[in-house]
Amino acid sequence: MKSHLRAALLLSPLLAIGAAPPRAATPGEVVALAPAEAWATVPAADLLVLDLDTGQRVVIALAPAFAPVHIANIKLLTRSGWFDGITINRVQDNYVTQWGDVTENKAMPAGIVANPPPEYERSSAGLAFRPMGYRDAYAAQTGHAGGWTVASDGRLAWLTHCYGMVGVGRNLAPDTGTGAELYAVIGHGPRHLDRNIALVGRVLSGMDALAALPRGTEALGVYREGAARPAIRIARLVADMPAADRPGYEVMRSDAPSFRQWLAARADRKDDFFIRPAGAIDICNAMPPVRPVKR
Amino acid sequence: MKSHLRAALLLSPLLAIGAAPPRAATPGEVVALAPAEAWATVPAADLLVLDLDTGQRVVIALAPAFAPVHIANIKLLTRSGWFDGITINRVQDNYVTQWGDVTENKAMPAGIVANPPPEYERSSAGLAFRPMGYRDAYAAQTGHAGGWTVASDGRLAWLTHCYGMVGVGRNLAPDTGTGAELYAVIGHGPRHLDRNIALVGRVLSGMDALAALPRGTEALGVYREGAARPAIRIARLVADMPAADRPGYEVMRSDAPSFRQWLAARADRKDDFFIRPAGAIDICNAMPPVRPVKR
Repeated sequence: MKSHLRAALLLSPLLAIGAAPPRAATPGEVVALAPAEAWATVPAADLLVLDLDTGQRVVIALAPAFAPVHIANIKLLTRSGWFDGITINRVQDNYVTQWGDVTENKAMPAGIVANPPPEYERSSAGLAFRPMGYRDAYAAQTGHAGGWTVASDGRLAWLTHCYGMVGVGRNLAPDTGTGAELYAVIGHGPRHLDRNIALVGRVLSGMDALAALPRGTEALGVYREGAARPAIRIARLVADMPAADRPGYEVMRSDAPSFRQWLAARADRKDDFFIRPAGAIDICNAMPPVRPVKR
Repeated sequence: MKSHLRAALLLSPLLAIGAAPPRAATPGEVVALAPAEAWATVPAADLLVLDLDTGQRVVIALAPAFAPVHIANIKLLTRSGWFDGITINRVQDNYVTQWGDVTENKAMPAGIVANPPPEYERSSAGLAFRPMGYRDAYAAQTGHAGGWTVASDGRLAWLTHCYGMVGVGRNLAPDTGTGAELYAVIGHGPRHLDRNIALVGRVLSGMDALAALPRGTEALGVYREGAARPAIRIARLVADMPAADRPGYEVMRSDAPSFRQWLAARADRKDDFFIRPAGAIDICNAMPPVRPVKR
């Protein structure tokens, strides 16, 4: 069987399987077949849209259950227009793309919390955390809660630094950063940053606008003085956009049977391509499925 | 303390620390101070140089200890000029960049092994495998051997799918791919592919030429018909290049005291930025340090 580009590398459903015997559903099939009740709409007030001057759009789901003060700051910065004109200043390969005020003197809007508390972790009480039950290098448990990837020591819980997660740049402690300087992970999950920085969200759409940028040539991937820097043309919360323009996204619910089925199918791949299913999955390979809301 | 771009996000040594107290070396400091004997030169016959028509260069260290038949094929394909003109056809965000013969009818050179054995794992005997001792979702043990990241079940050992690793696209089993179709990992380590595909090497330089490409818009990140595709202008083994032009790279030896020190410093970050060192490290965050050979 010859497949164009050996697309079989990823997913066998694209192959003409012919008279294939019945088999377990693939992860993609589980997602495609998941019922409406398996999905939760991201609240419009928690969806941050960055329209870049490159014409690309980045949509970020915010996680107020984990970093409420930082996220209140981010919403205030967004609504006051502070992010408009802010540039991407750092793209470090296999690490982060980071944006913020390169002049470091743009005035903050009134009401900003200059020194938020260290929202690096929270009580696991009330979180409906569902551990996956697989080993993890960094935490006693990893799993999901409310559509987020979470690690826990049993008592506390925190978001995990995975591809596409968004965090708050900061200086040395006890400064935790205001939320004016943000980064998105564009490489292997730098989980050593967990519990050391406030994570505030996840890029749901437009990762390519952040990950496919030229890498910065200075130390830490900072762009050289004078290098072209993509800028945020306008940042908005979806809740503040005209109704007709609002993008919408759904994340698969962590408590949905479809999600457990998806996780199991990802951990134990049974499609025709896989010779030896792993029988396990790393939390950063278990980012909950996302889909745009159909209009 | 105000640092430009909050560079403290990554490494505190860039900050003016002032009268900081003595502290443990950072990973970067361990690398900078490692003695010459901590480094092993990659053999020129195992260094594959891809010069792209974008002007960028990708240098890949091949791993003949793990996939000798596939790598003999890759060397034959290189030396016969087969890779010259080959295009990048697939860039899937958080997964792989893949190159090969989009026409699927370019004649193979004489001597190619059409169906290599499944070099997905090998005996751990004779490998001088050094386990790190941290938990891993996918394997009983992870660690290093000969400058490579390795997983093992005690009896067998295999290379791990981490950012920058290069593997062989294939169809459904028992076809293992010839080595004419290759991919590099550009996202979180897809470790579920371990033991399912032959890994053949690691990109030592030029990852940005593969990871910063526009993502393909078709299924699986395949570029649309007619989309611009970067091409390999010329592929060469360093051993076949004129002596004056040869790039050289060194990888830190897995058995060097400096390497153990680097691993410990990465697992237990003690610089001023880190509040809570992880006390552990995932194998894909433990890719051995690489440096160009000074001339």
